[in-house]
Amino acid sequence: MSSNHKLTIPDRVLLGPGPSEMPARVLQALAMPVIGHLDPAFLQIMDGVQQMLRDIFQTKNKLTIPVSGTGSAGMEAALSNFIEPGDRVLIGVIGYFGERMVDMAGRYGATVDRIEVPWGQVLDLEEVKKALGKHSYKLLAVVHGETSSGAQQPNIKELAKLAHEHGALFILDTVASLGGVPVEVDDWNVDVAFSGSQKAISASPGLAPITIGKRAEEVLSNRKTQVGNWYLSLSEVQKYWGKERTYHHTAPIQLNYAMHEALSIVAEEGLEARFSRHRQNAEKLWEGIEELDMEMLVKKENRLVTVTSVKVPPSASHDHVKKHLLEDYGIEVGAGLGQLKGQIWRIGLMGHSSRREYVTLVLAALREIVAAGGPQNAN
Amino acid sequence: MSSNHKLTIPDRVLLGPGPSEMPARVLQALAMPVIGHLDPAFLQIMDGVQQMLRDIFQTKNKLTIPVSGTGSAGMEAALSNFIEPGDRVLIGVIGYFGERMVDMAGRYGATVDRIEVPWGQVLDLEEVKKALGKHSYKLLAVVHGETSSGAQQPNIKELAKLAHEHGALFILDTVASLGGVPVEVDDWNVDVAFSGSQKAISASPGLAPITIGKRAEEVLSNRKTQVGNWYLSLSEVQKYWGKERTYHHTAPIQLNYAMHEALSIVAEEGLEARFSRHRQNAEKLWEGIEELDMEMLVKKENRLVTVTSVKVPPSASHDHVKKHLLEDYGIEVGAGLGQLKGQIWRIGLMGHSSRREYVTLVLAALREIVAAGGPQNAN
Repeated sequence: MSSNHKLTIPDRVLLGPGPSEMPARVLQALAMPVIGHLDPAFLQIMDGVQQMLRDIFQTKNKLTIPVSGTGSAGMEAALSNFIEPGDRVLIGVIGYFGERMVDMAGRYGATVDRIEVPWGQVLDLEEVKKALGKHSYKLLAVVHGETSSGAQQPNIKELAKLAHEHGALFILDTVASLGGVPVEVDDWNVDVAFSGSQKAISASPGLAPITIGKRAEEVLSNRKTQVGNWYLSLSEVQKYWGKERTYHHTAPIQLNYAMHEALSIVAEEGLEARFSRHRQNAEKLWEGIEELDMEMLVKKENRLVTVTSVKVPPSASHDHVKKHLLEDYGIEVGAGLGQLKGQIWRIGLMGHSSRREYVTLVLAALREIVAAGGPQNAN
Repeated sequence: MSSNHKLTIPDRVLLGPGPSEMPARVLQALAMPVIGHLDPAFLQIMDGVQQMLRDIFQTKNKLTIPVSGTGSAGMEAALSNFIEPGDRVLIGVIGYFGERMVDMAGRYGATVDRIEVPWGQVLDLEEVKKALGKHSYKLLAVVHGETSSGAQQPNIKELAKLAHEHGALFILDTVASLGGVPVEVDDWNVDVAFSGSQKAISASPGLAPITIGKRAEEVLSNRKTQVGNWYLSLSEVQKYWGKERTYHHTAPIQLNYAMHEALSIVAEEGLEARFSRHRQNAEKLWEGIEELDMEMLVKKENRLVTVTSVKVPPSASHDHVKKHLLEDYGIEVGAGLGQLKGQIWRIGLMGHSSRREYVTLVLAALREIVAAGGPQNAN
């Protein structure tokens, strides 16, 4: 066995749809020595993480924890715990991550109906109401910030109300929104919300915050069948995070250090200041994109503050620009995903990456690359 | 939102059943800046991790990756990908983690039979052969190093042969063994082996190495139903780790840095030297335990080199000793789990924690605490 693999990390400016850059304090937290997952000192760190997650979700929900996996594991926890075989569920699909929920829900034995709009648009309240009336649904799940299209679903409070009027749980994907734009779980009456560590929170990738309200806890405790997933089964996981402190699995210790430090930084900045920083930088970006004579996929009122989708102009090549941003400037932006492959770039301004100087930089770099010319867009 | 939670990490000597201590180089790797999960530089790191995982598993299996969760997620990946509803499986239960496999396999719709021995003992070849003959099994899964009891299952090559003679896949839990004792996936003909990052590899908790052989890959590609778990579905995960590089979920970037560095250290030490260090330190511990007039649960030839289970003597209290080791010496040892609660301590000598000085320390500390007296064992 030989090691010829040196660990080399290049300098990058992370302006993709995640991960975002991490503050130095969070990197330092990661490098602190590992301790046991049942060490009294770690249990205290867990309590701090839980309390600060409640603050950022704007909830009093007791069952608020970081799931030991990435945002997609949070999504799977949010679905698998509340679906029993034969349940019918309604999923809002406004992009790639709505599609993912459809796929997941099916794996747990649900009959899945979808309410869909073209990518870049958002769900209409009247249409959702109509769809909810067609069948008896166990849950309605929608995406708050759809990173694949750059759209932000409005009217979350009204969507939750519609779901409840039809006897369904309301599940919200806040992977790309939590910590960057307001997510008001209690005020909006969201039953289950989940997120990721590496977007607007700027912790290390590998944890998925989730919060479960009373209505959802009841559904969980009234299940007739076991949750079809051991690792993400919240009844068992909560015994470790709750008072019992029963071993379930070894928590990712250092990822929780990083989450703790990142949430402390969020608290120090304050939610309002943080949201306004994100909005200001996004608006500066949007103005700059228009000045470059480029268009955005999503109309302004539905635009996701944390991730902007920019249409590749006919005069440019998706791949050429993306490659030169990375190779000549160290700037990462996201590629178009799924049906938008080759058609958009996705520029993320999330968490520690949401900085005025980065907006200025990416606009200037785009201007230089486009001015220099290069291969036309083949798409 | 306010932050009153300061991140405080106490000094610890980690001699429990995991996590083990991490070398400074691995801690430093964790603190390196995050980059994108599709960044060419990260793809190179992934290639290095995969190659070094093959080396430590002693296999040429192409599909060898770290699953983005802890060892239990690795276990769930190893079962869920190969079980379809209605399959019959045979699980060897020699302790807590065998029980866990029974629980998991049931959640994916398998009819689960168990072959069982009292905790502390190991499976007998003849009994396994008899059990395999009773029904047609899709797979036989056994635990190599059972951390709950401190037993190491011998005859893995023979068990794999028996499974194959009966048309079953052979799945091996190497969470507590990989990197500390020989695990020879190819020579032993193991179809699926999985492990954890935080035991004898001494990387950061949150990744689960897994390797899949040809026979198992075939079973996977011949499935009639979708894998009942999205996050751990290897057909999709391998498209990210393989040539396609298709996005599946955001890899825990920094955990992979740590894994890369930890595996480089394993390679520099060399597998043989590493195994012999583990064995020497374990034997020194065993001798010392006997000199303290304490007994071990497992007879010498079946003892797990990485985790030793020490019976709580009638003159001592499980909780009192454990508490004083932690509070007065900073030493973490493991408690008895499940049916062995209160009856044993579990002393781990794994990876970077397997050091001569730690053996000397824990024995001396035990001697001092026991000599000082204290509450009798209530159990």
